[in-house]
Amino acid sequence: MKWQNLNEQECSVARSLSVLGDRWTLLILRECFLRVTRFDKFKDRLGLSRTVLADRLSMLTNEGVIKKIAYQHKPTRYEYKLTDKGLDLYPMLMALVNWGNKHYAGDNGVPLLHKHEKCGKHFTPVSVCSECGEEYHPQEVTIEKGPGYSNEWAGNLNFSDDDPINHD
Amino acid sequence: MKWQNLNEQECSVARSLSVLGDRWTLLILRECFLRVTRFDKFKDRLGLSRTVLADRLSMLTNEGVIKKIAYQHKPTRYEYKLTDKGLDLYPMLMALVNWGNKHYAGDNGVPLLHKHEKCGKHFTPVSVCSECGEEYHPQEVTIEKGPGYSNEWAGNLNFSDDDPINHD
Repeated sequence: MKWQNLNEQECSVARSLSVLGDRWTLLILRECFLRVTRFDKFKDRLGLSRTVLADRLSMLTNEGVIKKIAYQHKPTRYEYKLTDKGLDLYPMLMALVNWGNKHYAGDNGVPLLHKHEKCGKHFTPVSVCSECGEEYHPQEVTIEKGPGYSNEWAGNLNFSDDDPINHD
Repeated sequence: MKWQNLNEQECSVARSLSVLGDRWTLLILRECFLRVTRFDKFKDRLGLSRTVLADRLSMLTNEGVIKKIAYQHKPTRYEYKLTDKGLDLYPMLMALVNWGNKHYAGDNGVPLLHKHEKCGKHFTPVSVCSECGEEYHPQEVTIEKGPGYSNEWAGNLNFSDDDPINHD
């Protein structure tokens, strides 16, 4: 069985990517976290067509990642805000931004700084283990079958590989 | 100036997404972290065409995210392994997997468990502030102009918005 044939019961990552696996979708979400809410502002900042923007906003609304809210009546005008499910994407977006800043920032440095209001400092995201609180690295992580494991999908994964990521 | 007109000096996120903003690319990277290295195994597991797979592997190789290594001669056969730059994508992939598991896992639960060999426990990724070590939330993060800030791109962002993400 292939990824594209998997339903959401079988592969949550493929399902996530059917929502997110698109350049425009991720850029729109990044804009949402940069406080952009209105159609024309998304359009002006991203420079994409009205059709593509409307399509992506509609898909994200249908998936419950953003919600469409009327902010004006006669004529009715809408804005788009992140739902709790959308807010849950923040660590992913921050990790993406951090990777971009590390590998693609220009000579002048990063375009935007993130300030953590709770501690008052500029910060970068660090991904740690929920159990021990330490930063984890791919070389220290192994995978095991979970309760929703499907042999059809994962059957040819090598769970006993000595080198978790075959890196040399 | 629009995102698609920005060069890498000006917008590291748009540049990152020109590498990653594609469903297949992210699925291929997920496979890399699941220890898949060979063309035919990528193809069998993902069920995509040879042309699309070759195109994405070539792009990721050119970007220095993976490297192509001969593992056999006469005939020469290659495998693909993550570079250090590719390994740096692990927090982003883990955050994506975690979001998928939270919002799209089936009734049976998650398909795969991640075990942190250093502490011996199954874990989920938690993204924390590099400065205070606490988990950050989008409501507690504000943005400021960085050294590579470009007014053309970021000029119409509202830096003084009281509600960092306009969420209600």
